[in-house]
Amino acid sequence: MIQPKPPSRTAPSSVAATTIVSSLLSVQTSGAGFTDLTAEIAQFVREAGAREGAVTLFIRHTSASLTIQENADPTVLHDLMTALNRAAPENAGWRHDTEGPDDMPAHIKTMFTATSLQVPVLRGALALGTWQAIYLIEHRTRPHHREIVLQFIGATA
Amino acid sequence: MIQPKPPSRTAPSSVAATTIVSSLLSVQTSGAGFTDLTAEIAQFVREAGAREGAVTLFIRHTSASLTIQENADPTVLHDLMTALNRAAPENAGWRHDTEGPDDMPAHIKTMFTATSLQVPVLRGALALGTWQAIYLIEHRTRPHHREIVLQFIGATA
Amino acid sequence: MIQPKPPSRTAPSSVAATTIVSSLLSVQTSGAGFTDLTAEIAQFVREAGAREGAVTLFIRHTSASLTIQENADPTVLHDLMTALNRAAPENAGWRHDTEGPDDMPAHIKTMFTATSLQVPVLRGALALGTWQAIYLIEHRTRPHHREIVLQFIGATA
Repeated sequence: MIQPKPPSRTAPSSVAATTIVSSLLSVQTSGAGFTDLTAEIAQFVREAGAREGAVTLFIRHTSASLTIQENADPTVLHDLMTALNRAAPENAGWRHDTEGPDDMPAHIKTMFTATSLQVPVLRGALALGTWQAIYLIEHRTRPHHREIVLQFIGATA
Repeated sequence: MIQPKPPSRTAPSSVAATTIVSSLLSVQTSGAGFTDLTAEIAQFVREAGAREGAVTLFIRHTSASLTIQENADPTVLHDLMTALNRAAPENAGWRHDTEGPDDMPAHIKTMFTATSLQVPVLRGALALGTWQAIYLIEHRTRPHHREIVLQFIGATA
Repeated sequence: MIQPKPPSRTAPSSVAATTIVSSLLSVQTSGAGFTDLTAEIAQFVREAGAREGAVTLFIRHTSASLTIQENADPTVLHDLMTALNRAAPENAGWRHDTEGPDDMPAHIKTMFTATSLQVPVLRGALALGTWQAIYLIEHRTRPHHREIVLQFIGATA
């Protein structure tokens, strides 16, 4: 917890923010797993003419969620799913079981990950790091139709 | 992780965003458990005249947090609490114990859930899914007074 | 889950929001642990002339993350790290191991905490609670260079 050199920061750059752009993204999942939404969000940023600001993602479900994770090695996604299954195993004495053994674990996995996310937009592009991708995580065993509200707030071209 | 059909997205709709509306929500909890804040947030959206934009919720505490979860079957909330207790049990060798055995687990549960959340507002209404409610989670055993900053950024009527 | 008295809320206060201010914060970590960013963020808020709105923090990495936690007793941070290590231990059968035994646990810890955070700004100051500090969590064993996008959206002085 020692910090060897002080943090540095670029000078704040400022623009007038005047626009909100909203869109509803519909995704058909194929059961438990990750769907990479990055290209769709980047396309939304382009169509919106977004220049400086932030994109909010909001998933309208309680058994699917959002995360930003590594996009390079697919075994990362496999291991993330393993970690979620360990944190919320099926048949672990849950009371809520009327919708199948995968439903309550799906709610728990949603609670431990994200329902809303924000990604800044700088000079017209998502400010993601080199290895970051934006994923929807389907927590139910069977395929589902999922809706995500996309909203850009900021300055447009 | 196969995606059977491509995601679809509605055309971006755009409005001028010019207003920030802030309010402080005070909640008295009755000890560990969930408090549904949805009606209060919806009332804030109405009073603010919010039309298009997003509401940010920020809880000003480190032993209580926020989540968006199922509003239908109360056993879901019971099981979510069980999952939090399993992830952060009392008397599990924590060093921080001066504020009681429930305090350190409360901090851990806060870290694994949300301190800030964003919910889009579309056409004057919170864009929640059918089964979504916004909850405060009290992680301490005893009742506490909790404060949540509500802030709408966007276009008003 | 009983709520003894109804929540109360201050009257919404409204301002015109017209500015986005962005900055990139660079932090050199010294290996696994917490770095308190609160003073840097407060400095950014002052330099930006931020008056009413919200600061978004976005970390551009998948093996380091953000959290808002207690700033008083350092054993809290120690125990939070213990809880993260228990949730994502090394050598627990992860498939992704080409970048060292600490890499996959680092991704999992990132998923269970936050990549993006929002903190409201009210009357020119971060609306943090008394005991809240904003932390970067380094999940890798070795020191790393980390970048965080800071963005204020709202009204400036």
